[in-house]
Amino acid sequence: MDKGMNSVREVAEAAKRDSFHLAAVSEDVRDDALRRVAIALDESHGAIIAENEKDLVAAHADDLPEPIVKRLKFGEDKIGDVIAGIHDLVHLPDPVGRTLSRRQLDEGLILEQITCPIGVIGVIFESRPDALVQIASLCIKSGNCAVLKGGSEAKHTNRILFEKIHAAGMSAGLPEGFLSLLESREEIAGLLGCHEYVDLVIPRGSNAFVRHIMNSSEIPVMGHADGVCHVYVDKAADIAKAVPIIRDSKVQYAAACNAVETVLVHSDVAESLLPPLEKELREREVVVRGTDRVAQIIAGVDAASEDDWTMEYLDFIVSVNIVDDLGEAIDHINTYGSHHTDCIITEDAVAAERFMELVDSAGVYQNCSTRFADGFRYGLGAEVGISTGKLHARGPVGLDGLTTYKYRLYGGGHIVADYAEGRRSFCFKELQ
Amino acid sequence: MDKGMNSVREVAEAAKRDSFHLAAVSEDVRDDALRRVAIALDESHGAIIAENEKDLVAAHADDLPEPIVKRLKFGEDKIGDVIAGIHDLVHLPDPVGRTLSRRQLDEGLILEQITCPIGVIGVIFESRPDALVQIASLCIKSGNCAVLKGGSEAKHTNRILFEKIHAAGMSAGLPEGFLSLLESREEIAGLLGCHEYVDLVIPRGSNAFVRHIMNSSEIPVMGHADGVCHVYVDKAADIAKAVPIIRDSKVQYAAACNAVETVLVHSDVAESLLPPLEKELREREVVVRGTDRVAQIIAGVDAASEDDWTMEYLDFIVSVNIVDDLGEAIDHINTYGSHHTDCIITEDAVAAERFMELVDSAGVYQNCSTRFADGFRYGLGAEVGISTGKLHARGPVGLDGLTTYKYRLYGGGHIVADYAEGRRSFCFKELQ
Repeated sequence: MDKGMNSVREVAEAAKRDSFHLAAVSEDVRDDALRRVAIALDESHGAIIAENEKDLVAAHADDLPEPIVKRLKFGEDKIGDVIAGIHDLVHLPDPVGRTLSRRQLDEGLILEQITCPIGVIGVIFESRPDALVQIASLCIKSGNCAVLKGGSEAKHTNRILFEKIHAAGMSAGLPEGFLSLLESREEIAGLLGCHEYVDLVIPRGSNAFVRHIMNSSEIPVMGHADGVCHVYVDKAADIAKAVPIIRDSKVQYAAACNAVETVLVHSDVAESLLPPLEKELREREVVVRGTDRVAQIIAGVDAASEDDWTMEYLDFIVSVNIVDDLGEAIDHINTYGSHHTDCIITEDAVAAERFMELVDSAGVYQNCSTRFADGFRYGLGAEVGISTGKLHARGPVGLDGLTTYKYRLYGGGHIVADYAEGRRSFCFKELQ
Repeated sequence: MDKGMNSVREVAEAAKRDSFHLAAVSEDVRDDALRRVAIALDESHGAIIAENEKDLVAAHADDLPEPIVKRLKFGEDKIGDVIAGIHDLVHLPDPVGRTLSRRQLDEGLILEQITCPIGVIGVIFESRPDALVQIASLCIKSGNCAVLKGGSEAKHTNRILFEKIHAAGMSAGLPEGFLSLLESREEIAGLLGCHEYVDLVIPRGSNAFVRHIMNSSEIPVMGHADGVCHVYVDKAADIAKAVPIIRDSKVQYAAACNAVETVLVHSDVAESLLPPLEKELREREVVVRGTDRVAQIIAGVDAASEDDWTMEYLDFIVSVNIVDDLGEAIDHINTYGSHHTDCIITEDAVAAERFMELVDSAGVYQNCSTRFADGFRYGLGAEVGISTGKLHARGPVGLDGLTTYKYRLYGGGHIVADYAEGRRSFCFKELQ
């Protein structure tokens, strides 16, 4: 393990060193690297599938659960998808070198705020090999060095994907440290200790895993542990919209972080909403847990306790609570929710605005499914994750979340004493 | 102390509760609150000066160092300055509710990215009472609840300033928890433990103090511990600009974080730069520490060791190193610097661009003093601090750094299954 720790430190230090150079690599070279990655993956798809087969055989031998095996499988269609994703990325505008502001401070003294890569990003993810390709591609496009640690159950697939992407990037002229792969679980702790070299850690995985990472690193962590999302059905709701939205928010992919866990219903519409909602959910085999007030309208629901309000079921279960006004719904969401994505069903624009202003979440929705909280569906191209933190990037995080900025100040011998002693004064003027 | 910890937790929880409401308070009310604060401070300037006198008497009795006593003094002129600062702030555009992007995802499905306050900001600062007024004003303007902890040596001044600002804000309709004041040192640890309630901590003070805060909180911390800033004199430098810029960067205010600590000189210009530079610095009583190569050109300088390259002197001392090319200067800065503010003196635009791209600092300058790294001088109105972190805000942080954003999604019954199953498709279109 000592050896492992040392080698992680060396990997991170090399990535940091190369990150300064990668930050100065032109858009043309970065896009060329992405195209070469796409070609390399296409040309070696047979070898990739053969390596993936080894992981699948081992997964069956180890009796891994079926959902994990399913996510592990990386066949022709998945390879086609990631290649198409890379081509999409090439066509997105360069996130690096954008001018956020340009201001004249005085004659001949120009301040520019220009986007640049963050530096070195550590990404720790679980079984899906497509995540490796997506994350590596996003980091190439945004000029960041990436240190990746994938799930051990995907080790053969991850290794060949890493080798092909690394060789393709090098052939385009990227510095060697643009991409590194860690392969042992022990190396995670080593990586989290490299705060001098790693600027940001993005963990993708189970709640417990993400919370562990967040609590055990001095490095800033971007992501989310819990996704306790709500749909609130307001008294001015269109019930015909409410039922399909709640169904979609729950069953379209129940294990997703943006699936709904708690439905809040205004007492004025509880009697008209709950019976058809329960019928719809029962048909989809969703278990409903409700309070006593809910049970008075739809008999035979499982009892909900306060614990249910903070639970991310990630399963075909939904809790239901009745509230007497909008304010009570907002308080419930801000108190028990995870500040991920919450929706109001209402035809009342004033109520919708109030909900959107007062609910303290990354996504606040009116009349649509919480399942829309996703980088691709937001038009960001792809995402490295969804952040419930409020600093830097919030919600689905795409290329922009992988950049920071620098202030560049161009002068002609300007000194501060001239301003402090009244010989010159600032004339702030925004420039185009 | 237990009692203290509990009460901090209650203060922080109340601030969090009120932060949701403050986030929905209109610009008019926030600006009205600022105007009332300015009036209140003006009307009670006699009482404020009397309270400040108590702190000054205690400071003299405790034999506090003269620079601290000087910063503590809060007379007519300082009160006039902070009132003028508040009026400037009223006229700045609202940082809250700005639309960062607006995108049509599909017919009737509109995604907006809108700025909003961060929530609850904890600010821990030292002796200057003007900091309390500035920070409270910036938080009112940006709709954040602030929990302040000032230096105990300023306790009478801080208390009356807090009372006047709090009463003025309440009279304008701000929620009670918009501003709180902690008064004992023990409460800092309590505040740092309130990660459910406090969204961001901004420490302002000595390096050791800031580093301690950064290492002892789960709450994100924005700021900087060290300011090891560099001026690099390139081979294409105009020596007539270099000498005054280095003088200003060092002596204009040597104890500031943006003062220069290390001067790097290209070997081609060392013989023409170092003798006049040393003369200029000697006249200002600046001690020069140099390497052997430096000593060969200007005899009798103190010897510099590797430790000097990472030292923030905050004093009339500067270290000097000779480098043989631009790359060596950049490596020195990236290796030993604190990523705060670094300047190249050159007439060569290509060298300047290379320096600005490769130096990994919040501020990268050409031909001007490092002392310009300041929110007021950048035209931000005022600053809550300077960040050397790369996430969220970097460099001097003004109102924008006190905001985050929410994604608002407006639909008409849209569900994800329709897109996943091919019945509908996204038509991403940027809107104005």
